[in-house]
Amino acid sequence: MSFGKYFSVFNKLTASEQEALLNETVLRRVPAGTLITAGSDSCIGVVVVRSGQLREYITSEDGREMTVARLFGHDISILSASCIMNSINFDIYLSAEKDSEFWVIPPQLYRQLVEKSAPLANYTNRLLAASMTDIMWMAQQVLWKGIDRRLAHFLLDESAIEDSLTLKITHEAIAGHIGTAREVVTRMLRTFQSDGLVKLSRGCIEIIDIEKLEELDE
Amino acid sequence: MSFGKYFSVFNKLTASEQEALLNETVLRRVPAGTLITAGSDSCIGVVVVRSGQLREYITSEDGREMTVARLFGHDISILSASCIMNSINFDIYLSAEKDSEFWVIPPQLYRQLVEKSAPLANYTNRLLAASMTDIMWMAQQVLWKGIDRRLAHFLLDESAIEDSLTLKITHEAIAGHIGTAREVVTRMLRTFQSDGLVKLSRGCIEIIDIEKLEELDE
Repeated sequence: MSFGKYFSVFNKLTASEQEALLNETVLRRVPAGTLITAGSDSCIGVVVVRSGQLREYITSEDGREMTVARLFGHDISILSASCIMNSINFDIYLSAEKDSEFWVIPPQLYRQLVEKSAPLANYTNRLLAASMTDIMWMAQQVLWKGIDRRLAHFLLDESAIEDSLTLKITHEAIAGHIGTAREVVTRMLRTFQSDGLVKLSRGCIEIIDIEKLEELDE
Repeated sequence: MSFGKYFSVFNKLTASEQEALLNETVLRRVPAGTLITAGSDSCIGVVVVRSGQLREYITSEDGREMTVARLFGHDISILSASCIMNSINFDIYLSAEKDSEFWVIPPQLYRQLVEKSAPLANYTNRLLAASMTDIMWMAQQVLWKGIDRRLAHFLLDESAIEDSLTLKITHEAIAGHIGTAREVVTRMLRTFQSDGLVKLSRGCIEIIDIEKLEELDE
């Protein structure tokens, strides 16, 4: 089991802590589109990504979505174990954007281990701090940056992830990433098209002028 | 020194850890209006509030402000010690809204103690989780709620803090709390006045219809 290579604090734990982790941690494989956790009702535990692509996001009462972070191999979701921390009072959703493999450390086990282990508690501090930085980054985007800059940033990000200038993604999906409505995305993409930044066709966005997009994202 | 009553993990620490804390922790008194830390350049350490009222906030490149949390006696700012965590990559400002007293635990000492102590590391996890919840709450306000709801919430909050329906606060200061421009606050307050929610006079906002404000805040 290569779990230890992905959960980097593993080697600092005691033999019995390592054994408990290896015994109770479960490897899961899910197809793209799977909803892995939906808020506090389904706190599944700490998710350690082996491969694929996951998305952490929040939702509004009327069903709008906003991406908090996108996770790849070696990334860890501590927010999917929010029930471990009594002081986390918000709902996080986790879904698979691509076919994915990940380990799940059960919340009861994690809570029990972290109470006794200074290395694991300090590692958890770093995970929490990193998630807090993701949330703050998202908040600052929304507070200080217009939809044009958020959309430009998302297109560049997606292009880097897919390693392609041609993005196959719906306007609805983009809206869920940047926390706005589909109509707003469609309108802004048309403006981008008029300005020569992208070319739109059915289900497809082609990036034409990456430098101008990067200027927008600055 | 009553520090131990305010830093509630104190009794779970070893005698030598307690001694190090008591030796190096400093009690400070500052007048209202003092800027206590300004971003990562001045990471002063963990702030434990004894009395008064502090404000954690972020700023945009062009100088706009947004309140993350308001702290009172027994509250703790872990974000003022963000340099302890390498993975926190944003700047937090801390200022005194009223004459305040607080203890500061130096960051070097805190880092040294937390590495070895499971109780302190777990306590830090809870502080981080609570701050993360503050940041997420702020993000969700901005994402999903209009300026009218943010303003209504702020007025109710301020009224509860001051225990008064008459608030002596400038439109500029309110703008810095809810992350918008002064003009927007002025315009929205005038709308509130037309709707019979508040009455405006020089430097003063009187809450007339608290129930309607609460409805807005729901």
